[in-house]
Amino acid sequence: MKTETTIQGLSASLNPARASRKMIGFVPTMGNLHEGHLNLVREARKLCDVVVVSIFVNPIQFGPNEDFDNYPRTLEHDSHLLAEVGCDIVFAPSVEQMYGNHPRLTNISVGEITNDLCGLQRPGHFDGVAVVVTKLFNIVQPNYAFFGQKDFQQLAVIKQLVRDLNMPIDVIGVPITRAEDGLALSSRNGYLSEQERKTAPTIYQTLKTAETDLHNGQALSDVLEKIRVNLTDAGFVVDYIEARSPSLQKIDQFDQDVVLFIAAKLGKTRLIDNLQVKYSS
Amino acid sequence: MKTETTIQGLSASLNPARASRKMIGFVPTMGNLHEGHLNLVREARKLCDVVVVSIFVNPIQFGPNEDFDNYPRTLEHDSHLLAEVGCDIVFAPSVEQMYGNHPRLTNISVGEITNDLCGLQRPGHFDGVAVVVTKLFNIVQPNYAFFGQKDFQQLAVIKQLVRDLNMPIDVIGVPITRAEDGLALSSRNGYLSEQERKTAPTIYQTLKTAETDLHNGQALSDVLEKIRVNLTDAGFVVDYIEARSPSLQKIDQFDQDVVLFIAAKLGKTRLIDNLQVKYSS
Repeated sequence: MKTETTIQGLSASLNPARASRKMIGFVPTMGNLHEGHLNLVREARKLCDVVVVSIFVNPIQFGPNEDFDNYPRTLEHDSHLLAEVGCDIVFAPSVEQMYGNHPRLTNISVGEITNDLCGLQRPGHFDGVAVVVTKLFNIVQPNYAFFGQKDFQQLAVIKQLVRDLNMPIDVIGVPITRAEDGLALSSRNGYLSEQERKTAPTIYQTLKTAETDLHNGQALSDVLEKIRVNLTDAGFVVDYIEARSPSLQKIDQFDQDVVLFIAAKLGKTRLIDNLQVKYSS
Repeated sequence: MKTETTIQGLSASLNPARASRKMIGFVPTMGNLHEGHLNLVREARKLCDVVVVSIFVNPIQFGPNEDFDNYPRTLEHDSHLLAEVGCDIVFAPSVEQMYGNHPRLTNISVGEITNDLCGLQRPGHFDGVAVVVTKLFNIVQPNYAFFGQKDFQQLAVIKQLVRDLNMPIDVIGVPITRAEDGLALSSRNGYLSEQERKTAPTIYQTLKTAETDLHNGQALSDVLEKIRVNLTDAGFVVDYIEARSPSLQKIDQFDQDVVLFIAAKLGKTRLIDNLQVKYSS
């Protein structure tokens, strides 16, 4: 496995693969990798000849009061993990390398589907994601790119961006990887205290209960309210609980497939999760 | 020469060239071609193995009161001209093909350098240009793209866009092609009456006079004022007269290379031109 820290170095490493028309798979990450990321890499490994993983904590997707400075940077450990799951090239550029050589004047925004859910509490977040993903796509020029369904809204934004701009890339959404107790894996889980970590799986439990309740015919609004009560009782401060179509349209009845979204704070840590509930008439 | 009207057809036509790593040159146009466009194609022909010219009147770069509906569409004549100068593939998609298959939510804006000059009178214009050029770049995936220096601000915007987003494309600016009397060639010249056509070269004459005046040591502000007087006397309604650095920074003294920009209306027709004046101390 190679590690490249410059765009030029990465191009040099990828040129032979491009020249022989090999399929390039790309997994963009911010590092601090866990099994969720490794499953993205395994999926890429299955479909592609060459697997590139980027590790870049992207400053422009963090708000002024967010955790950019303290976001865990664990390149050495990440590299060991990536080598084990068959990554070919780690691309770990500096902020300077990605943004430093001239003032950036270009912004990309994906409207409507970024205005609520996580977009509401994090203004500019998805613009920052759209810009960095576009840059990385242009640098790596992959055939396939892999994103986790845990960040379901992010996945929807990137699919929309790729479609709107005719990017020649297939975007693959990979199911959420969960701990044995159901907690969706996330880099931010590391911020949880021992007690909070024990409480955190309540999010997934409420989602599974909601799935059962919906299939038993309970009204969607009642089910959402029950989630809110259960989370609040368990000590969460709820940011949002929403029901959407898989393409993020608002829905108010369970008469089609629905994705249930939760964002809630436990202490200082903001956790998100989602569950797609299939409709069968 | 092939003509393709669908993205899929174009990809099929270009795949053999891509597979054999040929250099692809791309000239995006809105059709109604004149010698200025043909010089872009000749330049592409010199540098590249395969030359693609797109003809697409892009609705989203026209304002509500602009000439989208009446913009001349002359595909058959354009095709004859392109075949003569060695174009390999004409890409002439419908609006449906470019924008029709789903609602577009993505916007791209290039800040600062789009807020004045032509951007001031045409809000949203350069966003529309940035989106369509990005889409076309992703569809054609050229190695080189060619743009005329007549639309100097557009060229600067596209260079900035490509740099900011790490697009793997070399953008080449090609000098303005002029009629014998100095008028910069433009599709919009066709809107001029016979009498207006005789007056139109005044724009270039004032630019050349300004160049001489600057080299003779006249103050930049005086030179700009003299252009304004001369154009107004000749019957133009001046939109702007500006002096900028080649990267579009405002300058108020002739102590570096300067680009003089003019936009002015003659009757109902808005004409633009520019001249780069070299500084030598």
